[in-house]
Amino acid sequence: MAAPLRIALAGLGTVGAGVIRLLEANGALIARRAGRPIAITVVSARDRAKDRGVDLSGFAWEDDLTLLAERADVDVVVELVGGADGPALSLARRTLAAGKGLVTANKAMVAHHGMELAATAEAARDGRGAPFRFEAAVAGGIPVIKGLREGAAANSLARIYGILNGTCNYILSTMEDTGRDFAEVLKEAQALGYAEADPAFDIEGIDAAHKLAILAAIGFGAGVDFTSVDIAGITRIRAADIAQAAALGYVIRLIGLADCQGRGADGAARLFQRVQPCLVPRDHPLAAVDGPTNAVVAEGDFSGRLLFQGPGAGDGPTASAVVADLIDIARGDTGPPFSVPVAELEPLARADPGDRRNRTYLRFAVADRPGVLAEITAAMRDAGVSIESLIQQGRPDAGGEDGAPAEVLVAMVTHEAPERAVAHALDLLRGSPSLAEPPLVMRLLE
Amino acid sequence: MAAPLRIALAGLGTVGAGVIRLLEANGALIARRAGRPIAITVVSARDRAKDRGVDLSGFAWEDDLTLLAERADVDVVVELVGGADGPALSLARRTLAAGKGLVTANKAMVAHHGMELAATAEAARDGRGAPFRFEAAVAGGIPVIKGLREGAAANSLARIYGILNGTCNYILSTMEDTGRDFAEVLKEAQALGYAEADPAFDIEGIDAAHKLAILAAIGFGAGVDFTSVDIAGITRIRAADIAQAAALGYVIRLIGLADCQGRGADGAARLFQRVQPCLVPRDHPLAAVDGPTNAVVAEGDFSGRLLFQGPGAGDGPTASAVVADLIDIARGDTGPPFSVPVAELEPLARADPGDRRNRTYLRFAVADRPGVLAEITAAMRDAGVSIESLIQQGRPDAGGEDGAPAEVLVAMVTHEAPERAVAHALDLLRGSPSLAEPPLVMRLLE
Repeated sequence: MAAPLRIALAGLGTVGAGVIRLLEANGALIARRAGRPIAITVVSARDRAKDRGVDLSGFAWEDDLTLLAERADVDVVVELVGGADGPALSLARRTLAAGKGLVTANKAMVAHHGMELAATAEAARDGRGAPFRFEAAVAGGIPVIKGLREGAAANSLARIYGILNGTCNYILSTMEDTGRDFAEVLKEAQALGYAEADPAFDIEGIDAAHKLAILAAIGFGAGVDFTSVDIAGITRIRAADIAQAAALGYVIRLIGLADCQGRGADGAARLFQRVQPCLVPRDHPLAAVDGPTNAVVAEGDFSGRLLFQGPGAGDGPTASAVVADLIDIARGDTGPPFSVPVAELEPLARADPGDRRNRTYLRFAVADRPGVLAEITAAMRDAGVSIESLIQQGRPDAGGEDGAPAEVLVAMVTHEAPERAVAHALDLLRGSPSLAEPPLVMRLLE
Repeated sequence: MAAPLRIALAGLGTVGAGVIRLLEANGALIARRAGRPIAITVVSARDRAKDRGVDLSGFAWEDDLTLLAERADVDVVVELVGGADGPALSLARRTLAAGKGLVTANKAMVAHHGMELAATAEAARDGRGAPFRFEAAVAGGIPVIKGLREGAAANSLARIYGILNGTCNYILSTMEDTGRDFAEVLKEAQALGYAEADPAFDIEGIDAAHKLAILAAIGFGAGVDFTSVDIAGITRIRAADIAQAAALGYVIRLIGLADCQGRGADGAARLFQRVQPCLVPRDHPLAAVDGPTNAVVAEGDFSGRLLFQGPGAGDGPTASAVVADLIDIARGDTGPPFSVPVAELEPLARADPGDRRNRTYLRFAVADRPGVLAEITAAMRDAGVSIESLIQQGRPDAGGEDGAPAEVLVAMVTHEAPERAVAHALDLLRGSPSLAEPPLVMRLLE
């Protein structure tokens, strides 16, 4: 058998320990599939003494992780430190510049610096290139980057969308199952380890947006453009919204969606990327995705609608994706990180969402007094948005103190309308004293 | 850009024409992703004059398809002729022996001769090997072979199971939606093109078994062993069975399932492969798979439960998989066809199903006369099988002529029991004059 592929592991958190456990548990079958053993030679983390439940005695140790990039006994660096910048980015740059392979689970770094790193990887070793892979950055152990980059490679994709954040999906599906409100379920998710102590990255949609930008780049042959992702999180969703969606035959899921329209002879393709809670019809495959699961749909012009689903995070799934990348590298399957060379990626302008036609769910928290409903419906009329259904319900738990009017919720679904018209209607209502908070806007996934 | 990968296309049915259309429609993006153009140079089919809706004038023509294997202007032969043996197999053998690549959608040929062809491929070109790929043989455009071979490559799989035949799934889900009986829905499926004029391969489970044997080989690192697949089709399922399953919270799907148990230090691993209609709990992802869709679940020890889903057949999806294989070959990503070299595949003995513990659905068509239920339940008791639920219902449309007793259906679900015990109970009932037909046996997917 050929010489081992020698790995440096940077970061020994749960995923790093998972990679060590995986290579121990399945080393023999991995060597058969890779054509050669995959062997960790050196590791680096902040605290050498910490007990991680794995035996580090067989590995060399580096205190300074960036030195891993220059070691002669390393073929590939696995970066599991995290953070878009800082030590992770320094290590990534130095590793690729040194012509070594880089495998990372770091979605923030790939979303922010993926193009630069891919260019470095392609130029490495006098243009022969160095492998740079990041399957673990998106959707845990689900081979969705491979699915888009290779499995669906013959297709022009109409759109890519899915459930990209397990924390949000756990919270939303638990709210749905229990009727409980956001804050309470978030607290429970934190206790169960499904949400971080500081959950902002997840519940504000940033994490899903990182993943979406990576998938869009690969699926549409565009550069990664994280800054143009339109992002909304799930923090403002109430139990009443979930109940209202259910009454209409929908569930609420945080959906990352990208599409590329206008691609044609005129070259005027536009990339649209959005992370937003959506109403998903109950008979759609994504509606059945519960708990901390991820699922990605890719609609190819020849393949049809492909769905990839599985656990979206965790040490085991993430380690599975990291080692799958290592096996590909050991087999010599490299190629451009984003499927086509960076120089051939098409820069795609950001699509104007105003042109998009959707049915939209709008929920207003309003003071319970005469004329409020007339004010809202007049704004819709004046903006040319026609209302498909509307329900007003009181909140038993809100308002009414100090003689102030009780708060009531008005939820409506519009007929299909351009987003520009809906935005105009909301502009007309902006600042109205009738509204207790800004309206909650969610699109219906058709 | 590098020289084109030159393709010979054998077989110009709907899939062959689909490959031509796909390479025309997406040629530019395919060349970017493959690093070089993929160009058909020569085609072969039975009838040159037939109108297939595609322009063949740019391609050379061979009357004798086996000559494609020796042409100097061909790098890869795409075999879309079909049939486990005959011209397809001759072409495949000659192509690989000549050191050219082979891509095929021919599940029967891979299930029966995959090991021989893989060995030929690996030995080709003085041991440097020739590419041999067959993503299109399983589950249409869903990259499930790639998913197992590469995406889940770091995992030891507990089991692989799924919906592998779109015709059966269309029939079963339509029976479910409409309450109609098998024969009627089959006729409709034939009219719609979802079932062949001779549907035996599909409805008897053979086609699903071909696919299962291929997936099992790749997933478990075993040789393809089609002859040891335990196969039952869907022809005996009645509307009443579907209604009964629904009342219990299940849907009926034709499931191909493979697992590998006892793999351990003693080396006594056993491979179990079965295609059989199963009761699938309504909250299982496979229960939501309707129409001519395929879906495959792979349970990895680190990845967790991965699901791959999409259109299971058709010219577009199949062409998408064929061209994905061509792109991999153009990129130079080859490697052993079954993930590990044929010589390293572990021959796995066939597992004894008698040891498997299941809950089982049994449905008897019996004469409506005293003592029948006692006879059935006594057989269960004597075999040590305990009954979880039982329902007896008359058939309004059956029996009663000539003074014969009307036929009634008795459906039961057993508690978990070894298959050996259930088989013993059915042996005790064999030949009983009370039974109008052999019992229908389906397992519950847990």
